[in-house]
Amino acid sequence: MAGPRGEYRKSAERRAQILDAAFDVFSRDGYTAGSVSEIARVVGISQTGVLHHFAGGKPALLQAVLEQRDARAKLLLEGRTGRDFLAGLVEISRTQESRRGLVQLYRRLATEAVDASHPAHDYIAVRFRRIVDAVTDAFAEVAAEGGLRPGLTPRAAALRAVAVTEGQEVLWLQGFEIDLAADIRSFLDSLLLEPL
Amino acid sequence: MAGPRGEYRKSAERRAQILDAAFDVFSRDGYTAGSVSEIARVVGISQTGVLHHFAGGKPALLQAVLEQRDARAKLLLEGRTGRDFLAGLVEISRTQESRRGLVQLYRRLATEAVDASHPAHDYIAVRFRRIVDAVTDAFAEVAAEGGLRPGLTPRAAALRAVAVTEGQEVLWLQGFEIDLAADIRSFLDSLLLEPL
Repeated sequence: MAGPRGEYRKSAERRAQILDAAFDVFSRDGYTAGSVSEIARVVGISQTGVLHHFAGGKPALLQAVLEQRDARAKLLLEGRTGRDFLAGLVEISRTQESRRGLVQLYRRLATEAVDASHPAHDYIAVRFRRIVDAVTDAFAEVAAEGGLRPGLTPRAAALRAVAVTEGQEVLWLQGFEIDLAADIRSFLDSLLLEPL
Repeated sequence: MAGPRGEYRKSAERRAQILDAAFDVFSRDGYTAGSVSEIARVVGISQTGVLHHFAGGKPALLQAVLEQRDARAKLLLEGRTGRDFLAGLVEISRTQESRRGLVQLYRRLATEAVDASHPAHDYIAVRFRRIVDAVTDAFAEVAAEGGLRPGLTPRAAALRAVAVTEGQEVLWLQGFEIDLAADIRSFLDSLLLEPL
């Protein structure tokens, strides 16, 4: 007999199914063209069923998809500092290679969300700041150990590393022959006195 | 009395007005949200009047706006090779700083147009290839004079230079304190044995 705990588990499973479907639909169609009705269709439930789990509708679904993605990256970088943190960025780049749809979704969002009226505007702005700050900290730790190439501030190194990561994704999505992980590693190496 | 030549000049002026308005509207609203009716309103004519000059409608207007932008860049790079060409890229970056709307429009397009069904898909794909090829040629010329940092192929240097340019625009639009021209110059210098 399914007691309250069974109900809770069932609800959590349904929520996870909806999140997976939202991930797939947004990755394929983008945020603007992706629809709650299509997400409901993929799960095999009604739109009302989707909205029962995500009362905020499409913006709430998008936020949950992005938070899931970020949680994975955060887990991978947890407790890592300096060169070890930078090596983690290379690992994240490697996982992107099998997630073309998500990379495209993220790029679309980062571009659309420059407009202050976009539902993901604050999320994207805060996210960029957090990333640049975390990478700056890592380069500062490397610099403290004397490992940063002379003439570079940790901030300048971080801005450039993030710019290269973003720009490589743009070219990769355009179909250029780019090995995201190898390329960002080689770029980071060019900022360091000893390769990663 | 306005003869055929007067009519022709008047028509060319009207066309240029429409193009300026399309530039402003697309820069402000993006391609998807920008409308021919808004462009007509800015010029102070009817939609039919706009379509008289740009029979292909919105896609034709977009193409004309982008071609005008590219024509300016091409003019600036005309006849330049090697290091002189690379210095031209820095000059183009400097002109971008006063054209935030156009940079945002271009970024939006480059992102949306990854989809093969987008009206600017072929234009953007061809444009990226031309840029990377031209920058590769410039680095090959630098390499032939022994000026490229060892261990870098002209192609790898070009892909990275274009990635940095694209990525810096992403961060700049997000509001990071980036000097586009100074930064791309300093990046190009890091690939060369002698600074530009």
